[in-house]
Amino acid sequence: MQPNASPWTLSARAEKMNPSVIRELLKLTEKPGIISFAGGLPAGATFPIAEFQAACTAVLGSDPIGALQYAASEGYGPLRELVAQQLRQQSAAAGQPWDVQAEQVLITTGSQQGLDLVAKVLIDHGSRVLVESPTYLGAVMAFTPMEPAIASVGNDDDGVSISDFEAQAAGARFFYVLPNFQNPSGRLMSAERRRALSAAAATAGVPLVEDNPYGDLWFETPPPPPLTALNPEGGIYLGSFSKVLAPGLRLGFIVAPKTVYPKLLQAKQAADLHSPGFNQRLVYEVMQNNFLDRHVPTIRALYKSQRDVMLAALHSAFPHSTTHPDQSLTWNEPAGGMFLWARLPAGLNAVDLLPRAVAHGVAFVPGAPFYAGTPDPRSMRLSFVTPSADEIRRGVVALANAIREMQGS
Amino acid sequence: MQPNASPWTLSARAEKMNPSVIRELLKLTEKPGIISFAGGLPAGATFPIAEFQAACTAVLGSDPIGALQYAASEGYGPLRELVAQQLRQQSAAAGQPWDVQAEQVLITTGSQQGLDLVAKVLIDHGSRVLVESPTYLGAVMAFTPMEPAIASVGNDDDGVSISDFEAQAAGARFFYVLPNFQNPSGRLMSAERRRALSAAAATAGVPLVEDNPYGDLWFETPPPPPLTALNPEGGIYLGSFSKVLAPGLRLGFIVAPKTVYPKLLQAKQAADLHSPGFNQRLVYEVMQNNFLDRHVPTIRALYKSQRDVMLAALHSAFPHSTTHPDQSLTWNEPAGGMFLWARLPAGLNAVDLLPRAVAHGVAFVPGAPFYAGTPDPRSMRLSFVTPSADEIRRGVVALANAIREMQGS
Repeated sequence: MQPNASPWTLSARAEKMNPSVIRELLKLTEKPGIISFAGGLPAGATFPIAEFQAACTAVLGSDPIGALQYAASEGYGPLRELVAQQLRQQSAAAGQPWDVQAEQVLITTGSQQGLDLVAKVLIDHGSRVLVESPTYLGAVMAFTPMEPAIASVGNDDDGVSISDFEAQAAGARFFYVLPNFQNPSGRLMSAERRRALSAAAATAGVPLVEDNPYGDLWFETPPPPPLTALNPEGGIYLGSFSKVLAPGLRLGFIVAPKTVYPKLLQAKQAADLHSPGFNQRLVYEVMQNNFLDRHVPTIRALYKSQRDVMLAALHSAFPHSTTHPDQSLTWNEPAGGMFLWARLPAGLNAVDLLPRAVAHGVAFVPGAPFYAGTPDPRSMRLSFVTPSADEIRRGVVALANAIREMQGS
Repeated sequence: MQPNASPWTLSARAEKMNPSVIRELLKLTEKPGIISFAGGLPAGATFPIAEFQAACTAVLGSDPIGALQYAASEGYGPLRELVAQQLRQQSAAAGQPWDVQAEQVLITTGSQQGLDLVAKVLIDHGSRVLVESPTYLGAVMAFTPMEPAIASVGNDDDGVSISDFEAQAAGARFFYVLPNFQNPSGRLMSAERRRALSAAAATAGVPLVEDNPYGDLWFETPPPPPLTALNPEGGIYLGSFSKVLAPGLRLGFIVAPKTVYPKLLQAKQAADLHSPGFNQRLVYEVMQNNFLDRHVPTIRALYKSQRDVMLAALHSAFPHSTTHPDQSLTWNEPAGGMFLWARLPAGLNAVDLLPRAVAHGVAFVPGAPFYAGTPDPRSMRLSFVTPSADEIRRGVVALANAIREMQGS
């Protein structure tokens, strides 16, 4: 070996890893005074701080050594039971009973870890993996280290295109789907589309990996039953406490069929032994006495009012969106979640618009990075949950000015 | 697809994953009244509960939204600075200054996650990876999913055999080493051996991955400087808060050269976005005012006294260990950490002994699972940190009875 030569040889997967494009774009927007529609953060005002403080006291007062000691890789038993019970109740209420057992629940270090474990257990080098178009970028980042061949399935406003899924299904290890208020598009998959997808996936022998961080954040009516409830043996379901309690505790969960669970558990054990037991007990403690039944409606009400402000501001700033959609910004009206998906006038490109928008004092995330296949360069993601109502109004005006400037240039 | 056929195809790596052998063995020992030398848990009595309670109040009182919100993948800035500062101070005090910068510190979800990230970034299918003999089983479990070819390097009481390392070094992606009070063997690598290994590794172009969860738990004198301090560009260093504060928070860290850090960071982001920010702030808060300088000596004193009780009990129960080592249990005298490494009389096998020992009321972990290469079937790991002094004495007598019974049978 040459003196001073580097001893490090990186794995092929490391060479394929990239810094998050969005993270890099966000650096552009980190200037004082910028109104940001770019973030993916839940509103901090919704975090139940007093309840967490009380839970810390309760957990450290009752069984501090148990809370601070090494613990089971599966997760804290009572929390697993509570997750199973909530999913049973929600699915029954949605008219599609799903008999989730606590033994199927694996507590993860955020639902992001669920994606890492799924990738490890289901993806070989070159394995075909299907995702939506657009899809959650964090999932692509979690799958990439296992070196899959990722393909995109098209969609319409009701969700995944069944015919495109069928055309692409052969040999896929799984199809990764976010049916509720998807990040980035805010899209909700309809009940009929879910039934059709579930049936098509069962016929094709392709498991569904269903990611549901936003499902509880509906504005008028709860979403249709989960895909996994329609065919529990053919799906893995990922959930999160980040959007209904707080992301800084890093807790999520996987519900897996008994045939796959043991391998996910072994991958979990190798990944971080277990998720923090202290945090699991805090969440369990906060959730006592049906706390979420009182708390989550306050998040829904806040996010709905923010969405309404953004929709009204968009209608006002872009009055020709329905009459001349190709010359105007257009957008969907998400029925829940944190994001709205918008499309620039023909000929404009969201990546090019971003620096100009920042110059006008507003930031967003261009849609292109969310596509595993061919991107729509006109698409963009607007988060409505963190800015104030006044900031939303001013931000939309600034966005309209930046777009008009770009159209005129 | 056949009706009812399973849609799941597992990855090749999942087929190679196995439940922890030790976990399975421990199930044997989970009977009421069994004195356990088998556990790998730190003593719960050492957890600073009042300090954690005060830290919860301080963190939630000062910046609760910051603590509960999504955060940087690198970790909490002030904690990274504190880790860097402590390593600079410790290495300077040990006579081998190491200029660790906060930018090199990546906070991980326990040091187990550090092993997972190292595996992802450095191991391809079939990559040669070197480990000690015996080695930490959790590391082998973390490396296995990336499908390396693991080879064992031999050792003597001072640590790794340099000639065996040199014979096996060609083409290795890294050598994983636990120089301080190793789990399972309690072994400490001497200062000379460290210098020799560091030089041999640099010559061979093989990076060292140095795992140091136990280094602070020395009984009489601090261990020699870290291997990574001897050649910072040629090593990754893993540390943990689990043994000096509490494992249930799941916090550890990696120190990596600037050439490797960005890839570890990207792997971290894909694995769980970031480690819990709340927990990072708790640890930072607890560590204020040099808390560890007062706290860690109490852990050292406890573990040393427990070790002394176990050594005295062993000498008393096995009086012929030095005169007739082949007919007696023999053992090392660890200078720190949590574990003592023992060897059964010739002809006995620790796996066979375990059920008989449990029948006598005592449990341990057979050494064989800790070997990536040819195991020593006579070896066994005895933890001295969790049982009381009286339990240690009674446990050693029970162990002696089980061994004598086995020798007589």
